[in-house]
Amino acid sequence: MIVGQGLYHDGLAVNSHGTFAELAARCHADGPENTTFAWVGLADPSHTELSDVQAAFGIHPLAIEDASGADERPKVDLFGDTLTVVLQPARFDTESHHLEFGQITIMCSPTYVVVVRRGDVQPLAKLRRNLEAKPAQLKLGPGAVMHEILDTVVEGYYPTLEHLYDDISNLEERIFSNTTGPDPTEDIYRLQAVVLRLTKAVAPLNDVLKNLRRNDHPVLTEDLQHYVADTDDDVQRIMDTLSSDRDVLLSALEANLTKVSIRQNEDMRKMSAWAALIAVPTAIAGIYGMNFRHMPELEYEYSYYIVLGGIALICVLLWRSFKRSGWL
Amino acid sequence: MIVGQGLYHDGLAVNSHGTFAELAARCHADGPENTTFAWVGLADPSHTELSDVQAAFGIHPLAIEDASGADERPKVDLFGDTLTVVLQPARFDTESHHLEFGQITIMCSPTYVVVVRRGDVQPLAKLRRNLEAKPAQLKLGPGAVMHEILDTVVEGYYPTLEHLYDDISNLEERIFSNTTGPDPTEDIYRLQAVVLRLTKAVAPLNDVLKNLRRNDHPVLTEDLQHYVADTDDDVQRIMDTLSSDRDVLLSALEANLTKVSIRQNEDMRKMSAWAALIAVPTAIAGIYGMNFRHMPELEYEYSYYIVLGGIALICVLLWRSFKRSGWL
Amino acid sequence: MIVGQGLYHDGLAVNSHGTFAELAARCHADGPENTTFAWVGLADPSHTELSDVQAAFGIHPLAIEDASGADERPKVDLFGDTLTVVLQPARFDTESHHLEFGQITIMCSPTYVVVVRRGDVQPLAKLRRNLEAKPAQLKLGPGAVMHEILDTVVEGYYPTLEHLYDDISNLEERIFSNTTGPDPTEDIYRLQAVVLRLTKAVAPLNDVLKNLRRNDHPVLTEDLQHYVADTDDDVQRIMDTLSSDRDVLLSALEANLTKVSIRQNEDMRKMSAWAALIAVPTAIAGIYGMNFRHMPELEYEYSYYIVLGGIALICVLLWRSFKRSGWL
Amino acid sequence: MIVGQGLYHDGLAVNSHGTFAELAARCHADGPENTTFAWVGLADPSHTELSDVQAAFGIHPLAIEDASGADERPKVDLFGDTLTVVLQPARFDTESHHLEFGQITIMCSPTYVVVVRRGDVQPLAKLRRNLEAKPAQLKLGPGAVMHEILDTVVEGYYPTLEHLYDDISNLEERIFSNTTGPDPTEDIYRLQAVVLRLTKAVAPLNDVLKNLRRNDHPVLTEDLQHYVADTDDDVQRIMDTLSSDRDVLLSALEANLTKVSIRQNEDMRKMSAWAALIAVPTAIAGIYGMNFRHMPELEYEYSYYIVLGGIALICVLLWRSFKRSGWL
Amino acid sequence: MIVGQGLYHDGLAVNSHGTFAELAARCHADGPENTTFAWVGLADPSHTELSDVQAAFGIHPLAIEDASGADERPKVDLFGDTLTVVLQPARFDTESHHLEFGQITIMCSPTYVVVVRRGDVQPLAKLRRNLEAKPAQLKLGPGAVMHEILDTVVEGYYPTLEHLYDDISNLEERIFSNTTGPDPTEDIYRLQAVVLRLTKAVAPLNDVLKNLRRNDHPVLTEDLQHYVADTDDDVQRIMDTLSSDRDVLLSALEANLTKVSIRQNEDMRKMSAWAALIAVPTAIAGIYGMNFRHMPELEYEYSYYIVLGGIALICVLLWRSFKRSGWL
Repeated sequence: MIVGQGLYHDGLAVNSHGTFAELAARCHADGPENTTFAWVGLADPSHTELSDVQAAFGIHPLAIEDASGADERPKVDLFGDTLTVVLQPARFDTESHHLEFGQITIMCSPTYVVVVRRGDVQPLAKLRRNLEAKPAQLKLGPGAVMHEILDTVVEGYYPTLEHLYDDISNLEERIFSNTTGPDPTEDIYRLQAVVLRLTKAVAPLNDVLKNLRRNDHPVLTEDLQHYVADTDDDVQRIMDTLSSDRDVLLSALEANLTKVSIRQNEDMRKMSAWAALIAVPTAIAGIYGMNFRHMPELEYEYSYYIVLGGIALICVLLWRSFKRSGWL
Repeated sequence: MIVGQGLYHDGLAVNSHGTFAELAARCHADGPENTTFAWVGLADPSHTELSDVQAAFGIHPLAIEDASGADERPKVDLFGDTLTVVLQPARFDTESHHLEFGQITIMCSPTYVVVVRRGDVQPLAKLRRNLEAKPAQLKLGPGAVMHEILDTVVEGYYPTLEHLYDDISNLEERIFSNTTGPDPTEDIYRLQAVVLRLTKAVAPLNDVLKNLRRNDHPVLTEDLQHYVADTDDDVQRIMDTLSSDRDVLLSALEANLTKVSIRQNEDMRKMSAWAALIAVPTAIAGIYGMNFRHMPELEYEYSYYIVLGGIALICVLLWRSFKRSGWL
Repeated sequence: MIVGQGLYHDGLAVNSHGTFAELAARCHADGPENTTFAWVGLADPSHTELSDVQAAFGIHPLAIEDASGADERPKVDLFGDTLTVVLQPARFDTESHHLEFGQITIMCSPTYVVVVRRGDVQPLAKLRRNLEAKPAQLKLGPGAVMHEILDTVVEGYYPTLEHLYDDISNLEERIFSNTTGPDPTEDIYRLQAVVLRLTKAVAPLNDVLKNLRRNDHPVLTEDLQHYVADTDDDVQRIMDTLSSDRDVLLSALEANLTKVSIRQNEDMRKMSAWAALIAVPTAIAGIYGMNFRHMPELEYEYSYYIVLGGIALICVLLWRSFKRSGWL
Repeated sequence: MIVGQGLYHDGLAVNSHGTFAELAARCHADGPENTTFAWVGLADPSHTELSDVQAAFGIHPLAIEDASGADERPKVDLFGDTLTVVLQPARFDTESHHLEFGQITIMCSPTYVVVVRRGDVQPLAKLRRNLEAKPAQLKLGPGAVMHEILDTVVEGYYPTLEHLYDDISNLEERIFSNTTGPDPTEDIYRLQAVVLRLTKAVAPLNDVLKNLRRNDHPVLTEDLQHYVADTDDDVQRIMDTLSSDRDVLLSALEANLTKVSIRQNEDMRKMSAWAALIAVPTAIAGIYGMNFRHMPELEYEYSYYIVLGGIALICVLLWRSFKRSGWL
Repeated sequence: MIVGQGLYHDGLAVNSHGTFAELAARCHADGPENTTFAWVGLADPSHTELSDVQAAFGIHPLAIEDASGADERPKVDLFGDTLTVVLQPARFDTESHHLEFGQITIMCSPTYVVVVRRGDVQPLAKLRRNLEAKPAQLKLGPGAVMHEILDTVVEGYYPTLEHLYDDISNLEERIFSNTTGPDPTEDIYRLQAVVLRLTKAVAPLNDVLKNLRRNDHPVLTEDLQHYVADTDDDVQRIMDTLSSDRDVLLSALEANLTKVSIRQNEDMRKMSAWAALIAVPTAIAGIYGMNFRHMPELEYEYSYYIVLGGIALICVLLWRSFKRSGWL
């Protein structure tokens, strides 16, 4: 599906009606000091649509292959003069606590930028409106579009990091609170899986950005390199956070195990205290239940009440001492 | 055993009857702008067969030595003009949950490609048919055959990864389900071993691919380098997945330990609750079993029933309170 | 808010009244052998204030962007001739045991140094007074100011490290003391989080200092490079300490788990010993409570006292043997 | 002790009688196109013997120092024209399950190779016979001897790896078998120590081989470099195996802890089930042991048998339900 | 405090009386082919003493700053022509099981070497005597003194490593012996801290030695580089040992936890067995304590003895079966 089609001259949107081939022709017509480029957006395109753009703009077949797949690792490739960037936008579904991933493939040369989006994890409609409102930036050419999308995808990881932060804070509260609740082990484990999954998507961006900064492809002007460096800082920050999240969750798992052991010990002490409280009357009663002929206490009129009182007293004293020593 | 023998000119299969020496002669006869090459496939060859190909195509003796061994680490070697690639295809036996490994040694120069397969982990018969159906690719020469095999072996790791993924998902379900079943520790441990074993086979491919990309051997044309880069991406993805699988399994082991501790605590609480339920009547009965002469309760006609009722009441109340506090 | 404004010529403070533009003009008026520079300090500046300095000194817009944000990762950037350094000063709040972070952005060229501070974690008022007292150092130009701030921020991490050291020592005492107290798991966990958080702030300084040392920006004279190397040593020492703190806390978590297990075992043994002490009289009393007609012991006049004495004796003997074997 | 002395010309052993000095003289007499070299083997030599060879062949004093020590780390050194390689052969004593290490120092220049062996971990007598049977190899000069020894030492690590593999397999069986046996913790721990110790001996070989491959010392001809590369592959494989052994043993330790916990829980459940089986008759008997005057059941003639039967029935039912729920 | 003062010409000690300035003058008087140098040793010097040497020998102020501090990280600095090396000698106090650290700063140029020692962890008096006895070495100039001190400090770590080795062996014995003793957790933890602390002191030596080897400072002659390489080997060996010690101690902590769990289980089984031994007579006695009118056993004359005998028999049988199954 074609979701956007634009033609830009000197940073300004111009009439962009027509077939892809017509757009391409108008870009090339611009001469050597080219400042016209086409920006085409496709969402989950059919094979026909992809062949159409390929033919119209003369994109390298291997670049189109990257755009056709649905689960590519983030990467930068240079096929002929087509610079290709594959990205994996992510969205954290707060309902199911799962990460969803999409794929965005950006193919550009000085005269065109074709963006192929798979899934609806990261819609890009707003992005075109935003960029069209900044002609100074659009003037930098297809590279500016590429960087803007890259930046949007990277920025899009932050909400997930915030969800992770909130979830970890919640977990900590659950682990260290003294009220009993469902065991957090599974939730810690699930968060670990999310962190690992996100790391898998973000880590290759290190190489992507390093490649973009080293590359002297014509679409990456010096002005753009500063912006790419900025995005690189964001990626570093995300990696730092993910790495520290991982360490935190590992410690949480271990801390939780300790807490479980401690709670187990407390339960055992409580039980044992109650057992002692019951065992004492049983033992005393057993003694006065013996059948010896000569047991003078049995004869006294108030013995029974005295013994009952004694048992009650012992139980109260035990109860208080257990209470004081924290066993009850 | 010779399992395949072909002669290709300009990407098309031509008459390939004859001895190895005849094939080699026809390839060399092609002149400097060589577009003819022989592709010989051997499975578990005898020493004689290996010496035959070596003599016919003039392969370096050390390359042949690599092909003779059965448990080589994946690697690239350049002996004279013979480029040698050793690969370890893997197959996950879903019955025994074990990994099986084979070995494929590819030796090639501009005029021949000799493929020696050990074990039947990765059959290559289909591969020849597929490549013969793509003359454009075969035209790229022996390097195209080498890459196709490399790619097939790498692709062949994916089913194992999927089995691992399924097994890990199953394990998670078992760890975190509340129904009791056999302890998953051993299965976690076995999966860890599989992941480690597969990592050992895949990790050297990093060096293999780096070497192939840096090498400017004549069989590795520029067109092929793009395909090699693609395979490199696959290897990176496999390594990422294996590394995250390892982390996941480590956490699973620890999570399972916590779950075992928690279940232990629950069992202990259940037991203790039942013990209390039995201890209370024992203690009360003990008291009325004492032999004091003056125990007025003993004389009343309905004492026994009252005490029985009291015991029953206490037991029911205890049972309900244990039930409510989750101990039963 | 403008918190400081100064003009320095040959290391000495000169009349610095006037607008930013006037200051800038006076610096530029100094000619090619420039030894005059302006030093402006801003705290949590408004957008207007930032635009003012930018316009007056001709700072690159991207540098100003860094200074506007509040949570940047420490980094060095070179925009045109503006050298920008972003730092994250830290302060450990001993009350809440939390780390607080601020941000300091230093922008400098040979004629000016603009320092933008966010938050009040690291006040810089004293720093200006100190530097003005050392004309020899100030003579080295804006780079000297930049290094002094960098050094102050790095030195500012040491008190936090000392707090960590004290807290870890306290924890160790709590873990290994035999008196019972609140479980230290949560405190270990919190310290781990502090260590991770501080590492996240300090680690990027490695790159910052490497960049400063490699950079041949005119403000970084050879004399200053020695001081930068010294600060680098400090950063290495901080990283070493944080890394060893992390390992120590991980071990503390595990050691604590072991200690909890051991204490649990001691509790269990104590309980079991007491249970045995009560069970023995119960059993003996049960035997003499049997109703056999022919139980000669029951008839003897002193049987009861003998049995009571026997029970007491057994209990004392058991108690002593439990005491000796460490169960009580 | 001199354990071997040989003179080789064009790959063939020639008359080698005479003092070291005579051997050295004959080697030097060979002229610039030198194809004669001496190969001297010493085992645990005295200081005099070492000084003798040093003087005779003109070995650098620091090289001799390496050969005198007994616990050097594997390394390559170049002193003047003396190439020195220090190796640590290992042998796994299957009786005591300990690793024993020896030391082999190889010093060579184009005219001699002196091999000093400490301990009898790796006898080299067979090696000389084997090499003398391969004149083609011996023709490559002292480097061929050096490589052969290096290869023999590296190959000598494999039997230890196989012992480790067998021991680990045994451990796994013990951990996961359901029969009770001695706890495998200590054995896991001992194997970890062996793996660490062997890693310490093998890891420096990475640098050794890297150095040998980069070095263009005259004894390392191009032909030999292929063999060195082969040995490098072996070292990589050994390191891979050791690293995976380490991970496996860490998991085994943790898996064993889980298994211990599970067995503990099973024991506790078994005990508790038996306790319940005994507690029930005690409680019932207690009730009928009460001394109420009006307890009609006591009067019926068959009450006793009914109660005994009831107790037996309850016990059987409990026993069966425990059996079914896996507690017994 | 000045602890040593010497003047050396061609490797021999010459008259060294006089002030520092006089010594310096005599060194400089030696002309361009300088073979005279002064060696001054200071222990915990005052500021005045440091200024004196600085003035006399013309040492760079930043080098003196390094020598004034007391807790510098090991490092190499080059200030003007002053090569500065900071070292951290260590001593293991076998009484308190703590590591003590000192500091040694060596400042040298071709005409002088000034050694500043803080603390008495590593006395250097013997070192001067030893070197003066080896004129050949002293002839190599100030670099020889620097290397000798470096080597002495590095050698000085070995006794600590040996103490660690002994302590770890002791720990292992305590963990795996079956006799009960104080829990080794704290000792393991303390040793881990010592290992981490020593690693922190030794690790920077890697950089120190790398710097010395790359540096072509005139005091580091080619002859000395071989000795530096030797010291580098020592540092590698120490790092290897520390790294393996760390792994061993981590495993020891985990193994100890497992052992504690197993001992806990054994205790629990023992207790349960004794509980069963007492519960059985209680239950049987309870049954014969019931008050049924018709309990024929009660009437027989020898019932009591039979029951007592039966109880005894059951207890003996239980005891034997518990013994056999290892519960007692």
